[in-house]
Amino acid sequence: MNLILLFKTDFTASGTVSLSGRRFEHLRKVLRAGQGAWVKVGLLNGMLGQGKVVELKDDSVKLTVELTDKAPEALPLTLICALPRPKTLKKVLSATLAYGVKKIYFIESWKVEKSYWSSLLLEKEALRGQIIPALEQAGDTMLPEIHFRRRFKPFVEDELVEIVGDSLGMTAHPAARQACPALPGKPVTLCIGPEGGFTAYEIEMLARHACPAVHLGTRPLRTEFAVCALLGRLF
Amino acid sequence: MNLILLFKTDFTASGTVSLSGRRFEHLRKVLRAGQGAWVKVGLLNGMLGQGKVVELKDDSVKLTVELTDKAPEALPLTLICALPRPKTLKKVLSATLAYGVKKIYFIESWKVEKSYWSSLLLEKEALRGQIIPALEQAGDTMLPEIHFRRRFKPFVEDELVEIVGDSLGMTAHPAARQACPALPGKPVTLCIGPEGGFTAYEIEMLARHACPAVHLGTRPLRTEFAVCALLGRLF
Repeated sequence: MNLILLFKTDFTASGTVSLSGRRFEHLRKVLRAGQGAWVKVGLLNGMLGQGKVVELKDDSVKLTVELTDKAPEALPLTLICALPRPKTLKKVLSATLAYGVKKIYFIESWKVEKSYWSSLLLEKEALRGQIIPALEQAGDTMLPEIHFRRRFKPFVEDELVEIVGDSLGMTAHPAARQACPALPGKPVTLCIGPEGGFTAYEIEMLARHACPAVHLGTRPLRTEFAVCALLGRLF
Repeated sequence: MNLILLFKTDFTASGTVSLSGRRFEHLRKVLRAGQGAWVKVGLLNGMLGQGKVVELKDDSVKLTVELTDKAPEALPLTLICALPRPKTLKKVLSATLAYGVKKIYFIESWKVEKSYWSSLLLEKEALRGQIIPALEQAGDTMLPEIHFRRRFKPFVEDELVEIVGDSLGMTAHPAARQACPALPGKPVTLCIGPEGGFTAYEIEMLARHACPAVHLGTRPLRTEFAVCALLGRLF
């Protein structure tokens, strides 16, 4: 946790919050913050700042907070990722949120196992349970937009071109002839396939809708590593 | 497993191997390879090729193998990484071996917890237990060189400049003024700090020994994600 994330419901009065549970434990056990200590805080979807411990009880802590700084800038990237297995989905979220990605579409693709769509992780509360710690780790307060699209063709035909807009669209694909550009200096819309890759039909569809294929070398990379490598290359 | 890795001891005759245990299970349950099926194989530290199932028993399989192709090229990178916690060490190994990194030094640094040095994972057999599956996943046969250096100063003063040699040396450091270059087109020696980063003294020592600090944005990234991002940027 590089930041203690606050919610509007934490405020007991203007400028005062009371925390218990996970954040209280972190404050006490990891930060070992005593009376008078300052800790980094941020309001969900709001500003960053400092909190001062004014009252430390056995099971809760009261902080006075000053929110003075803007949240770090979002990364100008829209990620379109074939829905990965739940374990990988967690890693992809944690990696992309660490980078400041704020717009993600998880989409259907031929090689996505049908069972992934019924993962409990896709439910709103479970997803939030992944996102909040990832934001705390990233020192960020801004919730990402996360969308799910269970049909490939309508998504590509009806939505993709508009999503790409003026950004640089691309699809990561090991067999592409073109290498992924480095530091293109503009927003990017990046499509990433499932384990085993997009099919030839899907690659062609994506290319015809503003997302031509690019490669990042020929080695097979796991989704979460490929995402990081692409973000490192692009920004 | 994108490859079944063979050892010299698997050979029962020239061109014939017998496999049991983990690789046999993978062949039967994941690849569902029956009599006559071809599977991708590679000899540890040797060539890649195909294996043909010639005899399938209840607990072992016999393959005839033809090793015809070179292993994928190594990535021209030497990684120097402050020893991470064991869980992260596994991730760093899996990510870097997926990229074809073949030379890694894990080193001491002020913020490395002393207990990490007594992790059982650092023992030769345990390390090999991480490396072999990572090579299989990467479709690679070449074992990496992995070194451990328990003292920072002698390593930097006596070894680092020689390790860097003609390559481009750099130290990843969020507070650096210079950004990490993209696609420098030459071999790289890359130093990565512990959780919490190298100290100012360490950064200065590394800079004076051919590894000046570079940054990759200001967001705090976990070691394994930072490594991937840097590799994606550099190669």
